[in-house]
Amino acid sequence: MRVLIVYAHHEPKSFNAALKDHAVARLEAAGHSVVVSDLYAQGFEASAGPEDFTGDRADPAHFKYGPEGGRAWETGTLSDDIVAEQAKLAQADALILQFPMWWFSLPAVLKGWIDRVFTVGFAYGGPAWYDNGKFRGKRAMLSLTTGSPAPSFSGRGLHGDMERILWPIHNGVLRFCGFDVLPPFVGYGPTLVGDEGRAAMLDAHGRHIDGLFTDPPLFFHPLADFEARVLKPDVVPATSGQHD
Amino acid sequence: MRVLIVYAHHEPKSFNAALKDHAVARLEAAGHSVVVSDLYAQGFEASAGPEDFTGDRADPAHFKYGPEGGRAWETGTLSDDIVAEQAKLAQADALILQFPMWWFSLPAVLKGWIDRVFTVGFAYGGPAWYDNGKFRGKRAMLSLTTGSPAPSFSGRGLHGDMERILWPIHNGVLRFCGFDVLPPFVGYGPTLVGDEGRAAMLDAHGRHIDGLFTDPPLFFHPLADFEARVLKPDVVPATSGQHD
Repeated sequence: MRVLIVYAHHEPKSFNAALKDHAVARLEAAGHSVVVSDLYAQGFEASAGPEDFTGDRADPAHFKYGPEGGRAWETGTLSDDIVAEQAKLAQADALILQFPMWWFSLPAVLKGWIDRVFTVGFAYGGPAWYDNGKFRGKRAMLSLTTGSPAPSFSGRGLHGDMERILWPIHNGVLRFCGFDVLPPFVGYGPTLVGDEGRAAMLDAHGRHIDGLFTDPPLFFHPLADFEARVLKPDVVPATSGQHD
Repeated sequence: MRVLIVYAHHEPKSFNAALKDHAVARLEAAGHSVVVSDLYAQGFEASAGPEDFTGDRADPAHFKYGPEGGRAWETGTLSDDIVAEQAKLAQADALILQFPMWWFSLPAVLKGWIDRVFTVGFAYGGPAWYDNGKFRGKRAMLSLTTGSPAPSFSGRGLHGDMERILWPIHNGVLRFCGFDVLPPFVGYGPTLVGDEGRAAMLDAHGRHIDGLFTDPPLFFHPLADFEARVLKPDVVPATSGQHD
């Protein structure tokens, strides 16, 4: 199978780099092929903007990023860096996002990878979302590190439940686009646990990697649950694409 | 009082721009002074990196963004764009983030404003978080627009409860730094409701703006709740600052 790892850490000697390298080695040893997008090394542009579209504007008088992105995808006029990332993702059977959790979310460069690469048409659009999402059949997994230790991220912990913290990414990005979302690997406080602790984390990470194509994904309510009860009164056109 | 609005939309004719202009006018009419950071117009760099620090590295052999940021803040060697934003925030009594919700979160440029401006020392550090956060006494409010209509963001809606979606920002960014967090203003699907609907949204927005310094903030468990029950076993050094 083919795996895309999108990696967002500056430092080759970081624990995030170790996790990325570990995933590559373990997946390749299992016969998979791996492509890594090293966002900082690539100098990947984080901020969405009109430079992302090289053709004529759909509406030269009023810039809407979403619809312009959809048009540029249709007409083949997205910027080269976006086209390259879309090609990697299109070919991947699984996506791993490897990042240090910053401010309870993705570092901006990784959020920007999503904002810019997941255009209308390519990643979603119209009724193509959730179960019917464009990336259905692909798997996705978050692999992240934190500063604080695990108890801080329990349901009664100081920072609150990790599943709740990751919900907007799991549901609103990955499941929204149709991915089967695997339980995340979280390396809690790698700087607090010493070499032995980090070795144990790599072992746990290895079990997530080994199960990338076999572990049961997280549960999300299927569209049918909503169509029967909630969705019908508020069927809407594509969301972000209409955004203003 | 002094208000900082951090605004993340490209288009001056957008509804986000209308909300920003509306807030400025209404606050100034009430005698407050307002500063706007227009991130796209400023060309604000979204991606955190070593260029953010102009002095010697704390560790030239292993780049850790958090500690380097803390050192640069202490030694006055942060990049000029970060210094300028920190000065605006230090002087503000209230912060409003005005943005279109992209992928259930902040656009990357606004996430990057947080990643880069909220350095250790300036925005948090050691025990200075939550109730003891550096920005205690200041107020903060999210003001955002969505593509989908309100019922999609109910607890039983297709996208799930908006409060749950915003939790990582409310708790993990704003409350983490000590802000009193106001209930958000959400303009649901402004492109779906016509001129009359948008006028009603501006009215509702105005009530949020009018209450910026008087409305009761959202509830968050105080640190004391955790110190008694959960925090003590896992007291930790500053989180993101140690991150790797």
